[in-house]
Amino acid sequence: MNTTASAPLRVVVWGENRHEQLEPHVAEIYPEGMHNAIKAGIEENLGERVSVSTALLDDPEHGLTEERLAQTDVLTWWGHAAHAEVSDEVVERVHRHVLEGMGLVVLHSGHWSKIFQKLMGTTCTLRWRSENDRELVWTVDPTHPIAQGVPHPIEIPQQEMYGEQFDVPRPDEIVFISSFTGGEVFRSGITYRRGNGKIFYFSPGDQDFPVYHHPDVRKVIANGVAWAASDRPSRALPTLLRYETGDFFNGRGYQGALHNHDEDVA
Amino acid sequence: MNTTASAPLRVVVWGENRHEQLEPHVAEIYPEGMHNAIKAGIEENLGERVSVSTALLDDPEHGLTEERLAQTDVLTWWGHAAHAEVSDEVVERVHRHVLEGMGLVVLHSGHWSKIFQKLMGTTCTLRWRSENDRELVWTVDPTHPIAQGVPHPIEIPQQEMYGEQFDVPRPDEIVFISSFTGGEVFRSGITYRRGNGKIFYFSPGDQDFPVYHHPDVRKVIANGVAWAASDRPSRALPTLLRYETGDFFNGRGYQGALHNHDEDVA
Amino acid sequence: MNTTASAPLRVVVWGENRHEQLEPHVAEIYPEGMHNAIKAGIEENLGERVSVSTALLDDPEHGLTEERLAQTDVLTWWGHAAHAEVSDEVVERVHRHVLEGMGLVVLHSGHWSKIFQKLMGTTCTLRWRSENDRELVWTVDPTHPIAQGVPHPIEIPQQEMYGEQFDVPRPDEIVFISSFTGGEVFRSGITYRRGNGKIFYFSPGDQDFPVYHHPDVRKVIANGVAWAASDRPSRALPTLLRYETGDFFNGRGYQGALHNHDEDVA
Amino acid sequence: MNTTASAPLRVVVWGENRHEQLEPHVAEIYPEGMHNAIKAGIEENLGERVSVSTALLDDPEHGLTEERLAQTDVLTWWGHAAHAEVSDEVVERVHRHVLEGMGLVVLHSGHWSKIFQKLMGTTCTLRWRSENDRELVWTVDPTHPIAQGVPHPIEIPQQEMYGEQFDVPRPDEIVFISSFTGGEVFRSGITYRRGNGKIFYFSPGDQDFPVYHHPDVRKVIANGVAWAASDRPSRALPTLLRYETGDFFNGRGYQGALHNHDEDVA
Repeated sequence: MNTTASAPLRVVVWGENRHEQLEPHVAEIYPEGMHNAIKAGIEENLGERVSVSTALLDDPEHGLTEERLAQTDVLTWWGHAAHAEVSDEVVERVHRHVLEGMGLVVLHSGHWSKIFQKLMGTTCTLRWRSENDRELVWTVDPTHPIAQGVPHPIEIPQQEMYGEQFDVPRPDEIVFISSFTGGEVFRSGITYRRGNGKIFYFSPGDQDFPVYHHPDVRKVIANGVAWAASDRPSRALPTLLRYETGDFFNGRGYQGALHNHDEDVA
Repeated sequence: MNTTASAPLRVVVWGENRHEQLEPHVAEIYPEGMHNAIKAGIEENLGERVSVSTALLDDPEHGLTEERLAQTDVLTWWGHAAHAEVSDEVVERVHRHVLEGMGLVVLHSGHWSKIFQKLMGTTCTLRWRSENDRELVWTVDPTHPIAQGVPHPIEIPQQEMYGEQFDVPRPDEIVFISSFTGGEVFRSGITYRRGNGKIFYFSPGDQDFPVYHHPDVRKVIANGVAWAASDRPSRALPTLLRYETGDFFNGRGYQGALHNHDEDVA
Repeated sequence: MNTTASAPLRVVVWGENRHEQLEPHVAEIYPEGMHNAIKAGIEENLGERVSVSTALLDDPEHGLTEERLAQTDVLTWWGHAAHAEVSDEVVERVHRHVLEGMGLVVLHSGHWSKIFQKLMGTTCTLRWRSENDRELVWTVDPTHPIAQGVPHPIEIPQQEMYGEQFDVPRPDEIVFISSFTGGEVFRSGITYRRGNGKIFYFSPGDQDFPVYHHPDVRKVIANGVAWAASDRPSRALPTLLRYETGDFFNGRGYQGALHNHDEDVA
Repeated sequence: MNTTASAPLRVVVWGENRHEQLEPHVAEIYPEGMHNAIKAGIEENLGERVSVSTALLDDPEHGLTEERLAQTDVLTWWGHAAHAEVSDEVVERVHRHVLEGMGLVVLHSGHWSKIFQKLMGTTCTLRWRSENDRELVWTVDPTHPIAQGVPHPIEIPQQEMYGEQFDVPRPDEIVFISSFTGGEVFRSGITYRRGNGKIFYFSPGDQDFPVYHHPDVRKVIANGVAWAASDRPSRALPTLLRYETGDFFNGRGYQGALHNHDEDVA
């Protein structure tokens, strides 16, 4: 966390914003869209530590141009019905920025987004049911910054069920595990590092229920945003470079498998 | 490990087989190709427990047809100069089979292959130098099956240097860490689970040095093959299914984000 | 796993055997003691691969003499009401054998045993309730050998509730996560390596309910026994030794902090 | 990290302070003792964010009274020749405070201290040589707060060699891996959580060499101190409590294994 920096974290809340347009019951719960509820939750918890804006699927380039991402410290991602409409070019771009050090917070049905699948390398599938399950979110890593300031457990009265097996790589850290009325369990708050970037996945949140108005859920998302922000002074993509013996700090460019061999050994 | 099965593990050693054709000094070290040296090493260690064949880049579909992969318990992968020539279609196919439960052993410069990158979600880059470094391979997980039967450390007199940072996800297990004459270190033996499959990456091995003739390196690769074989009775891709309350074992098909909502809630 | 060895694994099932003597309702469920139910479950699953005996708190030295432990490949541990009666000397002895390579399977209320606390370094506390909760045991690591051959989830109709936070070190592997009727969750199947030994903790099992007669629970315990057995050819306690430069394989004895300094530098 | 707190972190640097008294060459390198060099390094990096004091083996109760520890956010530990002189009572006390949430930074030969062994549950042994090895400290977790602000690698011209196998539990995070002139490798910067406390072990540092005057080593120790400080609002030891169904937040006291059974079931 840029604890000493005076500049606020620049956060972009990305929203698919389709359910809100197509389904009246969703629009009723989230009259300004889920993205604005998520944005408000981050702001109410982090205040002047953040500067939050939104970007939407239907914006040009989904609102995620190279220039925008270069100015983004942490991106949050909510998508569901329209994962397939996200352009591969934008996915590649977001992927590169994460590896360079941009933080990423993936929310709920974002588990099946192209960007999360690309970062995970797995199907990211799960078991699922949309009824009126109560979800209890239990902290299993009490020292983790993301778990601070919320009760143990968090109670969410109505929720979609997400259950194991959740086909993701073994998490770097499991912060939360949830149970549902039906008896299912889910690793609901998990972290990963990829390249120079930090990723937090948090499953509570749904279009059919007012989960993004829940104060504890909002607190966790805000904690996740603060955590995912890079501690590094600048962004850089990990690259493959040649280093001569004893030359630890200045790598040389790679010029291809056969080229280098000829040059180096012959 | 199919410890009780009488049928041998079906292993396919995949080789790029280009350096051996293009560079006389490589052909001299590996007159039958690196793939056949790797195959011989697995056979000399696992004997009747395995049935090993090879597949090459220049084979039709790179030798990795759907039928072939469906009959493969563990695939080993060596590529370097021609990663880009591997077809995306075959990469998708291998990726699916790994998630379904096929074991994968990625060797040396295979770190930069399309299939490893796709499974890892990162750049898989590292620091590198091809000189005459001595590599020492130290065991850091003495209980791991892959570390059995080799000295601590393994000494490899001449090797290419691979150094940190190695841009891969945090490994599930670090079995070996190597040092090089120049002082670099590398997480040289690491494991991952992806989907229902197990992956072992092992960095020692190079076209310019006779590393695949080294008995300890051969032993580790054979251990890795035995370890990567699935314990599961059959292959299956993780899938997203709906489960009604109390119906734990029979999921229903997913029919789309909006469809399901209408059906279930309305 | 000693997959090629013809000799069976030597397993000792350790039991406190107090509830069975003091409480009629426990004696009714386990007329031959819990230890014999556990023993039977291992035998019915592993057959000729194991040779199982039992040892009890009230045996001389709790049945865990130096000679006995030296002949034990895997020890299982069930204790509850009488943890404090286990002698510190025997705990030290078992601890040393685990670090040397003996496998350890800790069951249910064994979480609060001296030996588990000593190996973990934490309080090993949890939340708890003994009512008639249904426990569902979900697999989260489908590739793990311990998870093979059981349904997903395992259903245990009546169980004591064990809930998070479970104050243990972050597990090496989480194989199972359980939920309870009351909504609590628990990391119910977890592994650790300590020294050259492997440890599996499995929480289902209780004196008040017939959990050790449940076929899936018995299968998991048998899988855990097979997994915890060392792959190493012999037992050895990790020791601190001095190695001269280039002398990788033959360490010299340590003679004390000041002694060595004088010798080496002066 | 108490990022919003205005109060400085209260840090206690614990030093054995024996080599400095007994060996002139150590006194020459550290005329004010190693503990004061460590203290100065923390202060020069964290400035007003910390309030640092020292405590010594020969102080009453080793300077670690209940009152002192209750006022300590992070404790650093350096010991070597006199590990055995640390009283078991003080070790128990420090252990409890770590589980309650006090941060702990264990330095160099502190790997063999009673407190570290008690927290790890293993022998904490390693291979070792005190000659003039150069140590290179490589970052393997570039996103970790502890790795910020130091070169990759850190070069330490003269160092004692610490090598694998390092008999500790699998770390939660490996931040640094070192190599030595002789070719050995070591997991030199590792983290653990135990109870509500965070632990950082960092191996560079020795009485025979001026390692604690090295600016990068001092930076890492300061980073470790900042990282180990708890994010939790207050200290508490994890305890075993009974929770009735639906009563998530108020546990009842435990009254013994047999007592509870009688009360609850009868």
